[in-house]
Formats: sequence, C-alpha cells, structure tokens
Amino acid sequence: MTHSSHHGAEAPRALHALIVVAHPEPTSFSHAMAQTATAALTGAGHVVEVTDLYAQAFDPVSDRRNFLTTASDARFDQHVEERAAVGGASFAPDLAREMAKLARADLVIFQFPLWWMGMPAIMKGWIDRVFALDFAYGGGRWFDRGRFAGKRAMLSFSVGGPPEAYSTDGIYGPMADIVHPVHHGVLNFVGFTVLEPFVAYGPGRLDLTGRRLLLTEYQAAIAGIAERPALPTVASDDFDRFVRRTAG
Amino acid sequence: MTHSSHHGAEAPRALHALIVVAHPEPTSFSHAMAQTATAALTGAGHVVEVTDLYAQAFDPVSDRRNFLTTASDARFDQHVEERAAVGGASFAPDLAREMAKLARADLVIFQFPLWWMGMPAIMKGWIDRVFALDFAYGGGRWFDRGRFAGKRAMLSFSVGGPPEAYSTDGIYGPMADIVHPVHHGVLNFVGFTVLEPFVAYGPGRLDLTGRRLLLTEYQAAIAGIAERPALPTVASDDFDRFVRRTAG
Repeated sequence: MTHSSHHGAEAPRALHALIVVAHPEPTSFSHAMAQTATAALTGAGHVVEVTDLYAQAFDPVSDRRNFLTTASDARFDQHVEERAAVGGASFAPDLAREMAKLARADLVIFQFPLWWMGMPAIMKGWIDRVFALDFAYGGGRWFDRGRFAGKRAMLSFSVGGPPEAYSTDGIYGPMADIVHPVHHGVLNFVGFTVLEPFVAYGPGRLDLTGRRLLLTEYQAAIAGIAERPALPTVASDDFDRFVRRTAG
Repeated sequence: MTHSSHHGAEAPRALHALIVVAHPEPTSFSHAMAQTATAALTGAGHVVEVTDLYAQAFDPVSDRRNFLTTASDARFDQHVEERAAVGGASFAPDLAREMAKLARADLVIFQFPLWWMGMPAIMKGWIDRVFALDFAYGGGRWFDRGRFAGKRAMLSFSVGGPPEAYSTDGIYGPMADIVHPVHHGVLNFVGFTVLEPFVAYGPGRLDLTGRRLLLTEYQAAIAGIAERPALPTVASDDFDRFVRRTAG
C-alpha cells in the first residue's frame, strides 16, 4: 500500500492520531467506531494513540487535584496554578500524560454519544483539565495563531434521533448550531482546523447489517480524512482582540 | 414585606428554588452569586435548596454507578437501566437525592463559570446522571409537554471576556448561540420555561466596588425574577414528532 509507505515520493506524511473515546460500555457503537478509526488509520501507516476515558477511569473534576503542588494554599485560582504548573511541570500525572498525547497528535478525534447536546461529562472534563492556560492557549495564541494551529480535530458522535430532527425544521434545530460552541469556542479557539463531524444517526435503531454499513461509511470517511472538508478558520487579525475590525 | 407573606391576597406564591452551583473555590464569585440569590429568595419568603457540587464531591461520571442494582449484568444500556430504576427506585442515593430536589423545585438556577463554552464537567455530569429517562423525559413528554412544564430554569454564569466579545461582531460570536444547546436541547426539552440568563462579564477584572455592584445587579435580577423575560417555548404539536409540520 503506497499510503502506508514512508518512502514513496507522493505518499502522505504519516500522521500521529489521538482518539479520545467516552462510552461506559466497551461493546458500544462508540467503541466500535473508535476501533474502526484505529484500524483504518494504522492500516494506512499512521500512528494511533487512544484515550479510553472510561477504561482509564479518567477523573473529569477540575480543581486542586490537577496539580502536584499548588502555588497558593489560600485561594484556589486555576489560571494562576496552571501558569505555575506549565513553568514547573507540576501537573498531576493523569493530566501530564494526556497533555503529552495531545501535544504529539496531528489529528484528534473525539468519539462519543451526544448526551444532552454535548459531550459526556467525562470528556468535557478532559477538556476542562487538559486544555490548561499557557499549555493549550494564552499569550494571544488563539484561533489561527493557536497552540494547535496546523493540526486537525474532528467530532465523531452518535445521536438517538434521525437526521431530520437535527435540521432547520427539526425539533432540535440544525446540528451545526448544536456543535457550534465546541467547534468554534473550543477546537478553533486553540487553533485546530475543525473537520466536518461524522454523525452516526440512531445506531441503536439499526439492525446488525445497518450498523455494519454505518461502520463501513465511517471507515471510508477516515480513509478520506486528508480531503475531508473543514470549517473556515478564524483570523485573529480580523479582530481588535475581541471585536471585528470595521472599515471605518 | 408583602412579598414574603403567604397570606396577602396579592402576594405571589412562595417558590421552591434549587440553586445548583459548580465552582471549586468557596470564595469564588460564583459562590458569592449563589449566596446572593439564596439571600434574595429566602428574604422574599421563598424556600431555597442548594446543590453545591464541589462541596458535595458530586461524581459526574455516568455509568453503572448510577444504579444500586442493574437489570442486566452483561451489556450496560443506560436507558434500559434508567427505565428499570424509575420503576423500582433503585437509583444510587446521590442521584435519588438530587432527583428529589429537582422534582420539588419550581425554579432551578444553574450557577457556574463558563468553561470552554459550557458547564464545568461536574455540572454537565449532574445533568447526564440526574435527567434520567422516564424521570426527566420520555413517553412523548418533551418541550411544552415536558416533565418540568410550568417550572422555570435560568443559567447564571461568569465569563472572562467583555460583552463585546460575545456579540455578532465578537470573536466568540453571540452569547445566544453559545447557550443555545443547553437552553433548547436540555432545559426547554425537559419542559422548563427558560429565563434570560444572567451573565457576569469578567468579575476577575473588576475591583471590589465593581464586584459588589455586579452582585447588587444580580440581587435585583433575582428580586424581579417573576417578570424576567423567557425564551419562547417550543410547541410539540407544531412538529410531527421530529420535523415541523408544513401547510402542505
């Protein structure tokens, strides 16, 4: 396979991918999707690391536990502690490990069931704790100048309802509106190029054949990830720090 | 005070309020806001319960731990287990307590710092675990026919940036877009009338006088909560289950 070769003149560079998966049941469709992506990426010669949040018993609660030592014993200010920890490398080991995985990833895939229009808490807490000030953002490094500029991220998630429910005329409204805060305010903010999400609609209502077909579609999406459409990036220079520049 | 009277002919009915607060630092502005709301509501004769998620060491991870016993030992399906638990009252004690608080509340206030455009994981997990199938929704009970129809909910949160950053020309985009998934897909979905959120912009950049002024504004907002504007409710009957009915 030319795609797995590191030597072919036209072969794409091997990616370092991180798949973060959050589902309490190892036989869930979410885990099947994570396994499908892992197989497709490794088969194409890429390197894959997996953060299986439930299997790791990842603790999503952000507070003093994020740090081995705290700069201030009196009042807990997470930003102060994060700045100190980045300087002195005193993040708790569970965070330091995840930060290292994130730092070496060219592609990050978030695999989860959409719970209450968002990530399960165990995954939201991974972001709350791992995306620390002066590690993931800070010092004017945001959007196109962000820490992860040039790297790609994609949400891959399952929902209970059919596609129509997540449309302009659907009772939940457009899917783009549901993922907007995470796409724009989390992933774009720290610099990622955000790929079009892969949404698995109602895998629980499909039979085995239907679920296999959906996994095959996902496999194809991963195989074609180099060409997957992305959201437009946000140019920091279009803004005077917080507000869009006007011609006047 | 006529507002605190249970006997005056024109006195409003005493409310049962639940304030859910998530901040790791007890001296934080979030806790000051929760205390301000508690004082304003009890002073007006209302009953207030507080769920202090960090103080309670609430566990936000949703899985088998939600249940005292599980219907199936083989494959974990949270919906199956939630249906069984509602029937047999076998939710774990930490969830049963929170469900009881939620069930008796006429007004629920979520008090938190906006982290990565959403609730801290400890609060997202409170929703993931407490808003169980057949307790908070299910059987066609959603939006205006939802379990909590006739009750009110409000987000009250702090952000780091100024108001302009969360506008149409702001780098984060309109605040309404940021809160939309929670407003529509969580709170409206389970039936709550969603009040206009109270947003504390950059309390960390204010001096003591500025922070006190902001708390006074919040006190006034709580005092006027009966007249606080709400989002339009969603009429289930406008939809054929998932998609808007058309004249055709």
